[in-house]
Amino acid sequence: MNFPKNHRYLAALAQEPVDRVPVWLMRQAGRYLPEYQKLRQHAGGIMPLFRTPELACTATLQPLQRYPLDAAILFSDILTIPDAMGLGLYFSEGEGPRFRHPIRELRQINDLPLIAPEKELRYVMDAVALICRELAGRTPLIGFCGSPWTMACYMVEGGNLGNFRYIKTLLGDSPAAVHTLLDKLARVAADYLQQQVVAGAHAIQIFDSWGGVLHKSAYCEFSLRYTKQIIDRLRSSSITQNIPVTLFTRNGFAWLNEMAQCGCDALSLDWQVDIAAVRTQLDRQVALQGNFDPALLYTSVEYIRQRAAQILDGHDGIGYIFNLGHGVPPDVHPEKVGALITAIQELSAQQPSSR
Amino acid sequence: MNFPKNHRYLAALAQEPVDRVPVWLMRQAGRYLPEYQKLRQHAGGIMPLFRTPELACTATLQPLQRYPLDAAILFSDILTIPDAMGLGLYFSEGEGPRFRHPIRELRQINDLPLIAPEKELRYVMDAVALICRELAGRTPLIGFCGSPWTMACYMVEGGNLGNFRYIKTLLGDSPAAVHTLLDKLARVAADYLQQQVVAGAHAIQIFDSWGGVLHKSAYCEFSLRYTKQIIDRLRSSSITQNIPVTLFTRNGFAWLNEMAQCGCDALSLDWQVDIAAVRTQLDRQVALQGNFDPALLYTSVEYIRQRAAQILDGHDGIGYIFNLGHGVPPDVHPEKVGALITAIQELSAQQPSSR
Repeated sequence: MNFPKNHRYLAALAQEPVDRVPVWLMRQAGRYLPEYQKLRQHAGGIMPLFRTPELACTATLQPLQRYPLDAAILFSDILTIPDAMGLGLYFSEGEGPRFRHPIRELRQINDLPLIAPEKELRYVMDAVALICRELAGRTPLIGFCGSPWTMACYMVEGGNLGNFRYIKTLLGDSPAAVHTLLDKLARVAADYLQQQVVAGAHAIQIFDSWGGVLHKSAYCEFSLRYTKQIIDRLRSSSITQNIPVTLFTRNGFAWLNEMAQCGCDALSLDWQVDIAAVRTQLDRQVALQGNFDPALLYTSVEYIRQRAAQILDGHDGIGYIFNLGHGVPPDVHPEKVGALITAIQELSAQQPSSR
Repeated sequence: MNFPKNHRYLAALAQEPVDRVPVWLMRQAGRYLPEYQKLRQHAGGIMPLFRTPELACTATLQPLQRYPLDAAILFSDILTIPDAMGLGLYFSEGEGPRFRHPIRELRQINDLPLIAPEKELRYVMDAVALICRELAGRTPLIGFCGSPWTMACYMVEGGNLGNFRYIKTLLGDSPAAVHTLLDKLARVAADYLQQQVVAGAHAIQIFDSWGGVLHKSAYCEFSLRYTKQIIDRLRSSSITQNIPVTLFTRNGFAWLNEMAQCGCDALSLDWQVDIAAVRTQLDRQVALQGNFDPALLYTSVEYIRQRAAQILDGHDGIGYIFNLGHGVPPDVHPEKVGALITAIQELSAQQPSSR
């Protein structure tokens, strides 16, 4: 791996000392940026944007041209794998992702092809390589995938997740079918992440957007187990054995201990939890990332700064990466995002006592 | 208070021994019941249903005619108070509740009338009295209200809560205005609950549906503080000083300790959390209610029974009330609900070792 010049993010993941707290934001590339809106309109939608390496590269780098961020994250989608498996991903305006061909039967699950990401998702690796070339060793790039459970939710529900009726019915009545599906997804996801690292990604984040809709024992059996399977596969290869892995599970408060023991290097936290309390609970098992409430980006610059200071005051700044508790909302003003990043950089460079 | 013949629910709230675990279900009266659908159609919508004491009484009692439940809960809405304050509650098909006149400015908050529930919400007390007459001392009746924070969310957002943009902006930029609003709501809610007890309710549940969208310190400042204010007011009156109070905060995992110390008798838990772990964490500070995943009502009767047994096996059955982690979904089959209730009654009457 080429070690990037700005290595605050990687140092924090390794729980090494840093000159100030590193910062990047989930969905830092996206609709709140006018230059992104323009790019997307020009491309004719979001799918051509992440399927065309040059456009994905431009979208990835846009926020870094505006703000002094400590990491870039690949502009892509958590559902590229099921799309490549033939489910037909599409987006309708104002709604989340959907599949033309959802799967709800064991036969369909058995028929799902174990795709080879280096071929069927070549466009992602090409985007990673292009972004790394453009970054030229200045800033680390984060690769990512959806967790097997989260991908399976969309694949079974088809899009409108509602109360997760179909996947939970399958989980209760045909658990073996769900395990077969999750095992396939975990195998392909591990290959996919490894290929992203080969193409140049410096770290990995696994997005478990929907692990938090399960009760704890089902979470451990159907979500965490397969995230762990991915991490175990990465650790067993010489190419990825040391790659830092961050796990983000939305509404995962009830099983923080279990997540911290899955082999990941860091947990990315929702905004609800008190990060100082989580540090006490988990000690130094993992680095922590988070956890500013994204909706507070609608408030004044003064309040944004005040709340950012509260979060920073909760810990010593070691093994900590500033981020939001969820993605940047599509309708916040880019100046507010800039104010937050400036606040973190100024405040965390000071001694806690002088804030 | 007339002590009801079936007092399992009240005994469990007091953490006294019971012959078997009491069971009731959030939204046990509602759209999944064909007799409710018929009643609602006949009434011309949901609002005439809860505004007409006879109809509210019928809706409340319908699930008790079908299932051997250990408590009835008043059929009403968490937004009757802001409606009586003049905000104009309405429901559009397939959407949540909305207000014709949302409030977002300090002037509007200052102008909000401190209503007298015994007058402006007379129809609720009449329904409570009528239900108690019909129950004739057989089964306890639960009265309820929304938490001040949850009512405020709807009042400020107007209905479509999205990412709580307006209430969170107000919270950050004009916290004093939010406190003024919450204080008014807490005063009226305490009166409202006291009047329900005067009319015959045997216990109270406070529904904090949206406390879980706040970060922990904001939750304590803007949600829990005002729930506690309500409980303190109930405790300071001879009529309600011993009334059992249950608090339900959706996604409240991150502050269970704080909730347990607010003066309530019981916490109603979401389905995600492991109830045995919560018992260990909180010891016997409060009784616990919950926490079956309502979406599992779509699965087979066998799986419903298996999952119910898992929840029962997690504790000794003292100070515990079986319920869902959220309301009964509108499209589950009533037979599944019946199967769940039967399972709880059969399983919890046995010794844990023989299940």
